[in-house]
Amino acid sequence: MTAKSATTLSVALIHCPVVNKNKEIISSAFTNLDIHDIARAAKTYGVDKYYIVSPHQDQLALLTELLDHWLNGYGARYNPARKQALSLIQLEKTLEDVIAGITKDHGEQPIRVATSAIQRENNLSYKELRTKLRARQPVLLLLGTAHGLAPEVVEKSDYTLQPIDGGTGYNHLSVRSAAAIMLDRLLAD
Amino acid sequence: MTAKSATTLSVALIHCPVVNKNKEIISSAFTNLDIHDIARAAKTYGVDKYYIVSPHQDQLALLTELLDHWLNGYGARYNPARKQALSLIQLEKTLEDVIAGITKDHGEQPIRVATSAIQRENNLSYKELRTKLRARQPVLLLLGTAHGLAPEVVEKSDYTLQPIDGGTGYNHLSVRSAAAIMLDRLLAD
Repeated sequence: MTAKSATTLSVALIHCPVVNKNKEIISSAFTNLDIHDIARAAKTYGVDKYYIVSPHQDQLALLTELLDHWLNGYGARYNPARKQALSLIQLEKTLEDVIAGITKDHGEQPIRVATSAIQRENNLSYKELRTKLRARQPVLLLLGTAHGLAPEVVEKSDYTLQPIDGGTGYNHLSVRSAAAIMLDRLLAD
Repeated sequence: MTAKSATTLSVALIHCPVVNKNKEIISSAFTNLDIHDIARAAKTYGVDKYYIVSPHQDQLALLTELLDHWLNGYGARYNPARKQALSLIQLEKTLEDVIAGITKDHGEQPIRVATSAIQRENNLSYKELRTKLRARQPVLLLLGTAHGLAPEVVEKSDYTLQPIDGGTGYNHLSVRSAAAIMLDRLLAD
């Protein structure tokens, strides 16, 4: 096992716009374990940055306080491995801000890849996306909270990643589990 | 996508004996999202049963109440998909009780496979374990909470599954993420 430099994959966890159970457009609140679990998986697989996206100042202020505990406060001394994972997090108000940041970092716009539990038309296979990552193309993987990304986010993306199919017809993974599986499929050797 | 009958894989989430940060043997408390996330992943991949193991009556009583909400109460009507996932859960006081139950169900003892973030001697690869599952051998995958399974649980197991290696040297996935990745590697087509 040799350490590798960060990949060209970034992940964004979108809290707005997403849909609820009735397919209405909503903003969701942060879930603490989405932050920790996805950051730990991102660090495990060498993800470049883990963006957490919400337009709501109160939510962002709460998360800033939580991150301060783990990055600078007692949490950083108590659990340095957690600090390493949460260091990947960057807060942004909109998806446009995320894309602007990646474009600045990498010198080109990222390929925007939406994720969904439902089969879509512009599907991209894991194999195809691995090829793009091996070619060091910047890629932004979009994860939805609540009942998933709003249609406008999916429509504005370049591709939708092939849904995870466990062979049973049941497709209700948590976003934390789905993210872990996707990173393993895309980045494990 | 065709529905398949349950596989011969069961999963047990062990809360005692496990180790803490200082490698002392402890009992851990239940974490709500371990219950939900692993049940949802188990249902996605056709896991036979999801055992939750703790010797503590107060913990088991709390979980029984929580499950009653999702299986019989308002939760069952509000979210039938969650009911389907949580229906896989069976509570047991000890690992011996889990093994006795599987032996009764399948007519033979399960192969006990411990999991760990650390490389062990009696390692089993994902490919080898997939072969056993395709041959319909009953297999029990043991997941540790807190800082992992106690040494006595690992030593009494038949094998230890190859650790998940993301290629970065960082190996601090949550048990929820690790379980999702393992099920995907073992059971996805």
